Amino acid sequence: MGTLSGLFAPDRVAVVGATDRSGSVGRAIMRNLQSGFDGTVLPVNPGRETVFSRPALDSVSETDADLAVVVVPPDAVVPVVREAGEAGIRSAVVVTAGFGEAGSDGAARESELIEVATEHGIDLVGPNSLGIMSTPVGMNATFGPEDATPGGLSFMSQSGAFITAVLDWANEQGLGFRDVVSLGNKAVLDESDFVEAWGGDNGTEVILGYLEGISDGEAFIRAAREVTPETPVVVVKSGRTDAGAQAASSHTGTIAGSEQAYEAGLDQAGVIRADSVQELFDAARVLEGQPLPDRDTVAVVTNAGGPGVMTTDAVGDSGLSMASLTDDTLESLSASLPAEGNIYNPVDVVGDADNDRFRSAIDVVLGDDAVGSVIVLACPTAVLDYDQLARDTVDLQTEHGKPVAACLMGGARVDRAEDALSAAGIPNYFDPARAVYGLDTLAEYRSIAEREYEAPVAFDVDRERAEEMLSSAVDRDNTRLGVEAMGLLDAYGIPTPYGEVVDTPGAAADVAARIDGHVVMKVVSPDILHKSDVGGVEVGVADAEVPDTYADLVARARRYQPDATILGVQVQEMVDLDDGVETIVGMNRDPQFGPLVLFGLGGIFVETLEDTTSRVAPVSRPEAEAMTREIDAAPLLRGARGRDPVDVDATVETIQRLSQLVTDVPAILELDINPLVATPSGVAAVDVRLTIDPDRL
Amino acid sequence: MGTLSGLFAPDRVAVVGATDRSGSVGRAIMRNLQSGFDGTVLPVNPGRETVFSRPALDSVSETDADLAVVVVPPDAVVPVVREAGEAGIRSAVVVTAGFGEAGSDGAARESELIEVATEHGIDLVGPNSLGIMSTPVGMNATFGPEDATPGGLSFMSQSGAFITAVLDWANEQGLGFRDVVSLGNKAVLDESDFVEAWGGDNGTEVILGYLEGISDGEAFIRAAREVTPETPVVVVKSGRTDAGAQAASSHTGTIAGSEQAYEAGLDQAGVIRADSVQELFDAARVLEGQPLPDRDTVAVVTNAGGPGVMTTDAVGDSGLSMASLTDDTLESLSASLPAEGNIYNPVDVVGDADNDRFRSAIDVVLGDDAVGSVIVLACPTAVLDYDQLARDTVDLQTEHGKPVAACLMGGARVDRAEDALSAAGIPNYFDPARAVYGLDTLAEYRSIAEREYEAPVAFDVDRERAEEMLSSAVDRDNTRLGVEAMGLLDAYGIPTPYGEVVDTPGAAADVAARIDGHVVMKVVSPDILHKSDVGGVEVGVADAEVPDTYADLVARARRYQPDATILGVQVQEMVDLDDGVETIVGMNRDPQFGPLVLFGLGGIFVETLEDTTSRVAPVSRPEAEAMTREIDAAPLLRGARGRDPVDVDATVETIQRLSQLVTDVPAILELDINPLVATPSGVAAVDVRLTIDPDRL
Repeated sequence: MGTLSGLFAPDRVAVVGATDRSGSVGRAIMRNLQSGFDGTVLPVNPGRETVFSRPALDSVSETDADLAVVVVPPDAVVPVVREAGEAGIRSAVVVTAGFGEAGSDGAARESELIEVATEHGIDLVGPNSLGIMSTPVGMNATFGPEDATPGGLSFMSQSGAFITAVLDWANEQGLGFRDVVSLGNKAVLDESDFVEAWGGDNGTEVILGYLEGISDGEAFIRAAREVTPETPVVVVKSGRTDAGAQAASSHTGTIAGSEQAYEAGLDQAGVIRADSVQELFDAARVLEGQPLPDRDTVAVVTNAGGPGVMTTDAVGDSGLSMASLTDDTLESLSASLPAEGNIYNPVDVVGDADNDRFRSAIDVVLGDDAVGSVIVLACPTAVLDYDQLARDTVDLQTEHGKPVAACLMGGARVDRAEDALSAAGIPNYFDPARAVYGLDTLAEYRSIAEREYEAPVAFDVDRERAEEMLSSAVDRDNTRLGVEAMGLLDAYGIPTPYGEVVDTPGAAADVAARIDGHVVMKVVSPDILHKSDVGGVEVGVADAEVPDTYADLVARARRYQPDATILGVQVQEMVDLDDGVETIVGMNRDPQFGPLVLFGLGGIFVETLEDTTSRVAPVSRPEAEAMTREIDAAPLLRGARGRDPVDVDATVETIQRLSQLVTDVPAILELDINPLVATPSGVAAVDVRLTIDPDRL
Repeated sequence: MGTLSGLFAPDRVAVVGATDRSGSVGRAIMRNLQSGFDGTVLPVNPGRETVFSRPALDSVSETDADLAVVVVPPDAVVPVVREAGEAGIRSAVVVTAGFGEAGSDGAARESELIEVATEHGIDLVGPNSLGIMSTPVGMNATFGPEDATPGGLSFMSQSGAFITAVLDWANEQGLGFRDVVSLGNKAVLDESDFVEAWGGDNGTEVILGYLEGISDGEAFIRAAREVTPETPVVVVKSGRTDAGAQAASSHTGTIAGSEQAYEAGLDQAGVIRADSVQELFDAARVLEGQPLPDRDTVAVVTNAGGPGVMTTDAVGDSGLSMASLTDDTLESLSASLPAEGNIYNPVDVVGDADNDRFRSAIDVVLGDDAVGSVIVLACPTAVLDYDQLARDTVDLQTEHGKPVAACLMGGARVDRAEDALSAAGIPNYFDPARAVYGLDTLAEYRSIAEREYEAPVAFDVDRERAEEMLSSAVDRDNTRLGVEAMGLLDAYGIPTPYGEVVDTPGAAADVAARIDGHVVMKVVSPDILHKSDVGGVEVGVADAEVPDTYADLVARARRYQPDATILGVQVQEMVDLDDGVETIVGMNRDPQFGPLVLFGLGGIFVETLEDTTSRVAPVSRPEAEAMTREIDAAPLLRGARGRDPVDVDATVETIQRLSQLVTDVPAILELDINPLVATPSGVAAVDVRLTIDPDRL
């Protein structure tokens, strides 16, 4: 969608449905636009001579506008947008509600609107939007009661009401905005378009979003990956919890994807996720105001030991660590601090420290190469002037160019100091945990900005064989497959133990004879998903027992479900679990993000411990490697407690091959390899379950 | 220590070391005391005629004071306190520093001080204290720059500087205090004493603490359990993280106990733990201002869908759940809300709601028996008057008597509404997550107030046999025992599989012959702690292989450590793991809290997944039961995935029996039963390791 300059930097704005009528939305928009817009405001209303003393035009087609803001009744919206399109207007904001959010009539209206906008190539915001703002041109094209202070934050929100609340609050907090967009129903333009547009805008320092859903996960990841190396994107994605997701779906009617998918997708997009409003704006403030640290270490300089300990706790909770100060720094601090002080981090200049002692300690610590960022932490004392401390902090931050956060603790006595810090982009908090959160966010963003996205490996696989297997299963009316689908894994180069599905006791004995040692036997039936729960699995069967075991397995399955289709019994080589770890590799499809690949601790622990992690496919090698590192049980893979490490490379390759399979074959709706046994000598997919969508074959 | 009325409600306060000298601590205390104290202030300074125009006395013995505040030089402190004691003064605050925190001389001085205070029965605060305050008598006996606003919070802090920061901030926030204590070095009075005193004080609504350590865990638990049914106690215990613990120990020189012990101990004491300053005062505000909910369900009434979803997320993150509104409520809301509204929780009265519609929805929801507490959540609109909404909220809260929190979102436009809410004890936040945190804290406190502490069960055990076993091990110079100590468990009624330690291959064969089926063999050596890491364990040994296996195990151990003392080999019945779960039951001793009993997922998962939970011993039956419920793997014990549930009662009993063992026998420093195999038919302690302190036998 490009820069969207027609939306944010128009010369001429038509307000279709403009009016003077008291209490109306059309009046509110006119009032807001009139008050500061650098360009021309053109009211359109065939029923009026003038609006706000300006001559009212009869039709949008007479305006020669760049942007049309539409506030006519629902039925009139589509004709107006069509007219605008025909008149060459390429940007529109539809404020009117009564579309997708309002039953089937509304949904039909929204489809028409999309069609017309697409036909004329209109960049359309809404419908059901509060409007948009752009402070560089003084434009407030919303019907809200608040104006924005100019600044570097561009903010999009799926809730218009939230925008009004944020603006009122932000004005008091000294936060300034560049562009503000109420996304409304996102019929045409959505979050991906604004991420792209603001990423290309030099005046936008930080992109912020309140989102209840992402319309197109793939497009969003693509857009955000382009932008995040230069411009941080911070998002509150609500509906995180089950309760929240339910509330979101009743609010906007969106079918929310899974939280797992959002977690993976936002992370893979390079987006910083805030869990609350406070986090969103704490992150925004520090990302706008402070440089990035060159390392993840933080030093605390304080005149109060207790708050120093609290701050250290907050660092311990974060992704940062306490810097180990260099010998030079320790020597220098040792020379300038009294004996009761602490030269180690957190550096304690002691309660009787005056501004000079405090300043010199901050200076020394900021100059230490081992220190990534600094927190200046102070309690009020008789000998310390907060205003001076604030000025010193600002000067030293500028001089050293490292990120600094402040906790000048107190109430009224901090007000002026806080203003001075804030003017220099240094946030000040009463609670040290918030200062640490801010610096942690800077470090997180640095690692995002430095990311290199690697293309997924394309393994040499037998895609045709895989597709044929699925087609032939569907031809037999099988859409839920089990061990009989092991060949599918084989076609994609995922190691499976030798085994065959047979349908007589004699054939079972023949297969067993070809296998060294004992075998595993499993009943094969599309109707029995949890085989072990019904006694459908026997482990460690000796050759001689194979025919009887065959009969037993089939009999048990029949008892459990008399009408089950039984395809036979799988006879499989036994995988030695002694040195192995049972893992799971799986996939399900998310409505917004598509195939989501999962890896974790398998076997009986899957549901109970939920020690798993996910990525949106296609999964690159570094991503697959990260997955094997980030589960809690990761040390088990790498040889905890004197065990030999398992073949992690083979595990990583299996994740990638599965990713390739589910990307190649959209007909696979869900797939679980559980367990994938990882041993020191390789991996083996011991069992598999999948569901097929015949319509996507 | 009782009520400590001599400290908090004295008639006559002597300031020993009082002076007019500018910049001195003695002057600051005089100034603060003079400014509002209801009683008499008596300066003591033999070198001055007057202090602040009052006649100065030569000695504390001439004052007839109830309370002596001591600010003389370090060396003069002990003589002054002795003199005060001899003169019958029973309360003292020692402000002077240079004691336990200042090297060995200081430590010696502190010992003397304790001795003198104990001899005379003096309730002594400090040394190294900022002082104390008590607003009911207008007493500020600190040298800090701030005074406290009267209110219901009593606050103790191990950091004096933090008190000055908090008071300045709290005055702005409208938080009021009753008593404030800077604990200093806690030489005599510590946190337990103030919890006890404030628990008996009707004017204290909430007890707050900033603590870096707890001096005596057992005393603290005892004191807090008495108090918390009536008065909530909220504590920030810093040094939570490894980094923080290190910082705390360099700050106060305390040997901090383990975070695990504090977590368990504070919880068992009924203390609410805040992780940050913000949480501490958010909890204080709501506990002081609002009633307790009768259930853990919350309803949200809002005029904005988006923030409603965010709030629901925060509820999902908390211990609360979203209330399911009753049919009557739904009907009533349905009649009064427009079609675009949402009658289900979160209740959306829609952006065009005026005050009447909002008020009536809050009223209906507060009247619903299924609703425990309510959040009033609003974004600014043209038709909503925030001041009126605040007044309505206050009225309805009073009328229904249920807890309410408010998020009237915005900046300057909320100021007056916030004051009105605050005056009625209703907190207002911009961030809904903080409102939810407050209500969650109320629910947490209700469950604490309702707790019944059950006495631990005293099982019939063979304590004498256990002690004899340990003594005889110590006699043989063994202080680290392994499987050879299984008899210890047996003496305390903890089931162990049949097994014996033998020292010849022939004896091993004899034991194996007495056991049905295969056996487990383990080398027994006090020098080899991780037997399986050195090939010192063989599982599933057939009778015929026993003698050779004996030789192999001993040979491997010799190879690993040629000089190891090898006591022999244990031959043990095999425990069938198929239907079992490997758990761990263990104990270590904490310097502050004493024996800490641990339960969790055992086997190879112990270190990796750290899925464990702890309690300070003695552990009661309900506490042991709770332990088996609160680990992540708990569903495995109760039969996840079609498995039979294990014998949880036997597991619970084992935890209690271990608790009894380590309480009875303080010589056991550490003990691990790993694994304790829990099966459907019972439990079996398969392996044990323990360390003995010979001096405590």
